[in-house]
Order: sequence, then C-alpha cells, then structure tokens
Amino acid sequence: MRTYRIVLSGLGNVGRSFLTIMQSQATLLARRYRIALRLVAAADSGGVAIDAGGLDPAAILALKQHGRSVAALPGSGTSGISPVDLVRRIEADILLEATPVNLTTGQPGLDAVRTALRRGMHAVLANKGPLALAYAELAALSDMGEDSEERGDPRDWPALRFSACVGGALPTIAIGRRDLAGATIVRVEAVLNGTTQGILRAMEQGVAYADALAEMQRRGLAETDPSLDVEGWDAASKLTILANAVLHRPTTLADIHVRGITGLTTADLRAALARGERIVLLCLAEYRGDDVHLSVQPTPLPLTHPLARMSADEMGVVYYTDISGRQSATTLETDPMPTAAAMLRDVLDIARR
Amino acid sequence: MRTYRIVLSGLGNVGRSFLTIMQSQATLLARRYRIALRLVAAADSGGVAIDAGGLDPAAILALKQHGRSVAALPGSGTSGISPVDLVRRIEADILLEATPVNLTTGQPGLDAVRTALRRGMHAVLANKGPLALAYAELAALSDMGEDSEERGDPRDWPALRFSACVGGALPTIAIGRRDLAGATIVRVEAVLNGTTQGILRAMEQGVAYADALAEMQRRGLAETDPSLDVEGWDAASKLTILANAVLHRPTTLADIHVRGITGLTTADLRAALARGERIVLLCLAEYRGDDVHLSVQPTPLPLTHPLARMSADEMGVVYYTDISGRQSATTLETDPMPTAAAMLRDVLDIARR
Repeated sequence: MRTYRIVLSGLGNVGRSFLTIMQSQATLLARRYRIALRLVAAADSGGVAIDAGGLDPAAILALKQHGRSVAALPGSGTSGISPVDLVRRIEADILLEATPVNLTTGQPGLDAVRTALRRGMHAVLANKGPLALAYAELAALSDMGEDSEERGDPRDWPALRFSACVGGALPTIAIGRRDLAGATIVRVEAVLNGTTQGILRAMEQGVAYADALAEMQRRGLAETDPSLDVEGWDAASKLTILANAVLHRPTTLADIHVRGITGLTTADLRAALARGERIVLLCLAEYRGDDVHLSVQPTPLPLTHPLARMSADEMGVVYYTDISGRQSATTLETDPMPTAAAMLRDVLDIARR
Repeated sequence: MRTYRIVLSGLGNVGRSFLTIMQSQATLLARRYRIALRLVAAADSGGVAIDAGGLDPAAILALKQHGRSVAALPGSGTSGISPVDLVRRIEADILLEATPVNLTTGQPGLDAVRTALRRGMHAVLANKGPLALAYAELAALSDMGEDSEERGDPRDWPALRFSACVGGALPTIAIGRRDLAGATIVRVEAVLNGTTQGILRAMEQGVAYADALAEMQRRGLAETDPSLDVEGWDAASKLTILANAVLHRPTTLADIHVRGITGLTTADLRAALARGERIVLLCLAEYRGDDVHLSVQPTPLPLTHPLARMSADEMGVVYYTDISGRQSATTLETDPMPTAAAMLRDVLDIARR
C-alpha cells in the first residue's frame, strides 16, 4: 500500500468534488491500485489548513457548505497564508491545483505550480490559466519537457498532469499523445466548453440566452466569470493546452483567433439546422503550410459530424490522422464531478509512472 | 536512439499495413520518440525470413504482392519453420502477432505469444484469438497480470499489449483502464465489428446483404472467415477482451451470449428507423447483481445514442461510470491501416514503460 500526501489548492466546485470522491473512491483505490491519499493541506481564498496526519475531507466539505474558509478548521486552520506560501513549505507529494482560472496573470495557480515543480512535487491541474499562459516554462520544469539526451529519463522530473483542463473528463490529451503515438495528426476539431454548448443547444430549443446561461451556472459548470465561457476564452485556453501538449507547437493564448457566441441568435442557429447544419463553438487546429492556424469561433458543421451530433450536455474532440483514421471522443457530464475524476486519474497515472 | 528488434508473425492485411507504416513513420519515430524498429524476422503460412541486421519491409511487401511467401526471400527466407519455432529461437525484443484469428484453438498465435512471453519477449497482438480463449494465462505471464506483492513491479514482466484487438484503432482498452482509472464503470455498450456495421448501414440504404459483405471484403476489413463477423464471434471476442482487461472480470468466449446479424432484413432495419431507432450489433456488459452479463446481439438504440448516430464506417464504445460521466469514443476507418497503427502505438507504449 502506497500513501500519497496531497495538497488541494482551491475549494470551489471542482475542489469540493475532489474531496467527495476522495471519500467515495477510497476503497476502490485501496483494492484495485493499493493506493491511499492523505490530504495534508488544503487552501482556499481565506487561508489554509494543514495536518501531516491528514485532514478530514468531510469536515472541510461541511465548512465550505456553510460558506466558511478552511482557515476556520479547529486546530489545523490558519488565515493569512497564501497558496504559494503553503506550497513553498509543505511536505507533500502532489499539488492539486484547482483555484479559479485567471487568464491575465495565471495567479495564484501559476506561482503555486512553479513552486511545486521546482521543489520536486508533482502537480495535477484543473486550472487552465497557468498552462494557457506558461506551458513551455512549466513543461520544462517537469516530465512533460521536450525529450532530449540532457534531460535524461522523464521519470527523474516531477510529473505535470492536466487531463482535467481540456474538457472535463474528456481524455483529449491522452488520446492525442498516447493513442495516436506514431501517427501524425493532420487536423483537430473540438467543442471543449460545456457552458456554450449547453447555451447554444438550449437556444435552438427556444430558451432565452440569459436563462440558458443561468442554468449552466446553477449546475456549477460555468466559469466563475462566465464571460470566459461565452467570449470563447475558456475554449481558447483549452485549445492552447492541446496545441502544446498534443501538436507539440509552442503556443500561448495570444496565438488563438477567438470569437465567442455573443453575436449569435436563435434565428442563426435555426437557419443552420434548416440547411442540415449545426453551429457549435468550434476549437480548430488547421495546418496551413508549415504552421498550424488556431481558432475558436462559432462554426456550422454538417449534422452527421461527430461534434454536431452531440447533445447539449456533451463536449468532444475529433483527431484526423495519417495512419490511424479519424478518432473522436465525447464526454457527457452535467456537474463538476467528472473534472475532479480527471484529477484523480492523473494522480493514479503519477502513481503508476 | 533506441532500437527495438521486432518479429512480425502474420503477413495478411494487418501485417502488410504494419510493414508499410514501418517505412512511412520511420522519420517520425526517430525524431519524436528517438526510436528505431529493426525487423529481425517475419513469418507467414509458408515459412519465415530472418536477418539480425534487419529485413527490408519493401522487399517483403513486394513478395506478398506477388502472392509469395517470405520463405522466398533470397538469403534470409526458409520454409518449414513455424511461427512458434521462430519465436522459440529468435533474439528479439517484441513479437507482433497478426496471424488469422482462430477462435477454436487460438493457434498458431496462442503458442507464439505464450512462447514469447515465457522467453521475456514483449508481445503486441492484433490477433484476438489468444486473448479471447486464454486471457488469464497470458496476462499472468506478463505485466498485465493481477497486481500483487508477490509479482512485484509490473515492469519486471514482459509487456502484453492488444489495443489493436478491440475495434481497429479505437482506444477501447486505454480509455477503460487509464482514462477511467479511479472510477467505477457501471455499464459498457459498444459496436466493435466494422464489417457488420458496414453491412447493416448499407442494407438500410437498400444494398443487398451479399453485396454489402463483398464490399467489406474488398476493403480488407472482413475477417479471413467472414462468418466470424456476421455470426457475432468477432464482436464477442472483442467483448471478451474488454471484460477481462477493463472490467477485471475473468472471461472467455464461452461466457458471451451471442447472436449475429444473419436473421435481420432491410425491413427490420427500416422499421426501427421509423420508430426513431437504429439497430446495431451491440456488445453489452451489464451488471446484474454481483456479476456482469455479457452479450452480443442486434439491438435497437435511439438515434441520439452515440452508437446509433455513427456512420457506416465507424465503430465505437460507450462507458457509463459513477464519477466520470459517460465517456464515448468512435473510430472512422476504411482499411486495415489503423489496426496496424494501433500495433505501432503499443510498441511505443512499451518503449515508454
């Protein structure tokens, strides 16, 4: 039995879902993988809680349900310590980074992840900001760095995992890197923002935009700042990560041509349907000469297209390849739990390295 | 740069496709993965060819295109040596097993894989027979054996890989084992036989059964014995492998309830469509009490179902889970090359162990 000491930074929807699955999946982790997770620290915007013997996920969930910070946890809680302070000093194996996305500075997640990796701590991200802004830097500090003689065995570097960052539980990165290893990907199309997919499909059904958005927020699926969803920036940050990790093209958010859904009307959507097409907020990686053109914009697709035939609750990716046909995948999710499940699979991937 | 010495047993559609991609992907393998493959031996029904310095894939392809055996290869070819004889004596790193499926005895592939693993040689299979009949035995000889203290590190065992065995390039096994690690799979639905999918979708369009089958054979997609496809046995062998490797349920072909497509008419298919359903040859794993019921049979699904909305050239799998939503994937392939690409990704997976 191997125990991994984890630090959970960020106790919003995803962080709390992770606490829930730490409890619900504990027996499966022990029996199938011979692994236990010990939560040695947790952080939110109000402070931190630390306990080398392991914090109780249920106690933290109870506090959060009452709108309080982990700083209020009796005995282990303290205010006035930032996530990066915590990561600088804590003795732990894996940082789980689930603080709100900030696509301008990447903070506080970016500093926390930098610090963790530099200390040799593995990092599992659900927060896209650090990778959308600084993928190359973070990869170089980890086992995701570009392979070379000098760097030696990737296993000598701390692990950097982010399968939760590219469409909830959709295994976008794993399919691109692992299942298409040896093939050349010639084109990528994806629908990676669940909020706008839900809104557009609801609008097709006559639901007003504002009501559709409110529903996605009620379900805990929208970004803390929903303009990140509807203006296309969440999707763009995911495409940035995909371009780096799967297409091996150094990319930052600034490289993506972005247009969101705010200009679309129900009439637009229905006109497309009448033509046998469905408008989706499409993430596209398209080779033009030597470089890949990256964009996020509303795009009509034939109704038979894998991304046009999805339901309102699905996200998906399509990889076109030279020798491996066309691989597509979709995820159906209606709450944040699958995103937390993706963090858990990353933890298990690290354990199996 | 690391060179892997490979033995390719089976030079039918898949084996020949592998020879083709050995050439086409050589540069990518060197640049991205710093790997080279050296074909030290090849076997077909007429004999073997052996060259420690590496056989020329192009020379073998030329012979096969002229209907000849590798035994005719000048200098390196010999008749009268069986694949298992070869595997017993050859110095190599990886056996690629792509001989025709035999669901009664599993031979000659089963003995070849046993012999390879016992000699510490890794095995990559496109041939489903050995696994459908003897998964537990082969897994126990390899890194796929059930984890325990006694067995130690899986990496001390030879690798057993078979991602090419469960729907061409569809990453069925990888999604089930790696992307759903930590989750519980509660139900599996899949369409894993491309020949019957193509036939049924063509029949819906008014094409006669016999013509539809002939087209799948022309494309090189049907099994050497097409009754394996249309009677459901190919799909059943894939479900057997899935049940073992993903659901961790010891299973042999005899455990699957099987009914093929030979009783279906175009009228049946069109009546389903009129009801808003599509009939597919469905592989199903359904928990009933403590055990999982496994079946392959024609099944109507709502047109919105991920497996009902696929085209004639697609295969797919749907995993229903507790914490990770519903994950589905499809592959679009029109020739055997993606199956060979799956063998290549397995080789790279072994290299990265």
